[in-house]
Amino acid sequence: MNSSTREPARWEKLGCVSRLKTRVFEVLGVRYRHPGRETERDFVVVHAPDWVNVVARTPDDRLVLVRQFRYGIDEFSLEIPGGVMEPGEDPVAAGLRELREETGYAGTSAVLLGAVHPNPAIQSNRCHFVLVDGAVRSHELEWDADEEIRVLTEPVARVFELAHAGKIFHGLVLNALMLFAPKWRELAARPDPGRPV
Amino acid sequence: MNSSTREPARWEKLGCVSRLKTRVFEVLGVRYRHPGRETERDFVVVHAPDWVNVVARTPDDRLVLVRQFRYGIDEFSLEIPGGVMEPGEDPVAAGLRELREETGYAGTSAVLLGAVHPNPAIQSNRCHFVLVDGAVRSHELEWDADEEIRVLTEPVARVFELAHAGKIFHGLVLNALMLFAPKWRELAARPDPGRPV
Repeated sequence: MNSSTREPARWEKLGCVSRLKTRVFEVLGVRYRHPGRETERDFVVVHAPDWVNVVARTPDDRLVLVRQFRYGIDEFSLEIPGGVMEPGEDPVAAGLRELREETGYAGTSAVLLGAVHPNPAIQSNRCHFVLVDGAVRSHELEWDADEEIRVLTEPVARVFELAHAGKIFHGLVLNALMLFAPKWRELAARPDPGRPV
Repeated sequence: MNSSTREPARWEKLGCVSRLKTRVFEVLGVRYRHPGRETERDFVVVHAPDWVNVVARTPDDRLVLVRQFRYGIDEFSLEIPGGVMEPGEDPVAAGLRELREETGYAGTSAVLLGAVHPNPAIQSNRCHFVLVDGAVRSHELEWDADEEIRVLTEPVARVFELAHAGKIFHGLVLNALMLFAPKWRELAARPDPGRPV
């Protein structure tokens, strides 16, 4: 019988081959060897650049949202702005760039909220989350080809309602909102919620 | 200039071809036509069965966790149990099956916490989240080939600490914990936390 109390082994990566290259990710076949069993196996890994998602709060406590048609689900999706990081790009800088390009908003301050691995089982990259405060519409839009985005804002409390009601259903967007929630509870407890000091 | 206040169009799916088939997903090339622009474009979609992740709570308010080596990130990851749903399988039944096979735990009740789309931009499937209560170790393990899992339990409050500290970093596992949080707050407010009525 397998033991469930023994620590799992660190498999040794022997090498990898490209199985498919697309505009947004590459699928790798990665060969691993188990150190104890001396068996070799091939696993499939989706390799993509890191991603960034942005919680952008306006001075009147609304969040910037984007509504897009999403080809993965063949349906519309309500999300926060985000995109693909450039090689070597800082997550906060990338977040501010994506926010500006996608929505035309810029902020007065930006901090990293955290990061997750979207799927450690089959995907190598991370998704970073950036909080931008004092977000106001100040730039022209710079959409990529095929981007067609409805930009809107909703009060923060309404965004959490939309998440709880399943109207926001993108797992990574929900990760961002979870990381923002404790900061929002602090902000909402201000003596005058309309005017941050 | 692009308008950001106009609703985005619903692209029309014209057809798709398989670009790569692996054990865990298929990559499709999907051809779409924009209704207004009359342009056609190919998009890439990762197609996989739905997934299920399980928040399994023991009678003494601990959660069942699994620690595995994950090939996607070439690193260990601390997660809740989960796996791939069978065609036509009910999410709750799938969650109970995965929990039993992966950890040997069974519960006294199980409910659906919710579901997300892991990545609507490039991925078609959903991940469902199931809450199992009264979870106790009662079965032999039935691991798939290559599965090597450390099964452990931690107090619920400790699991949330691990998530906040970035020790649990799987985006979908964090989605599950976010959905479980309000239920836990209710449970934690019980007069006698050790004995649910």
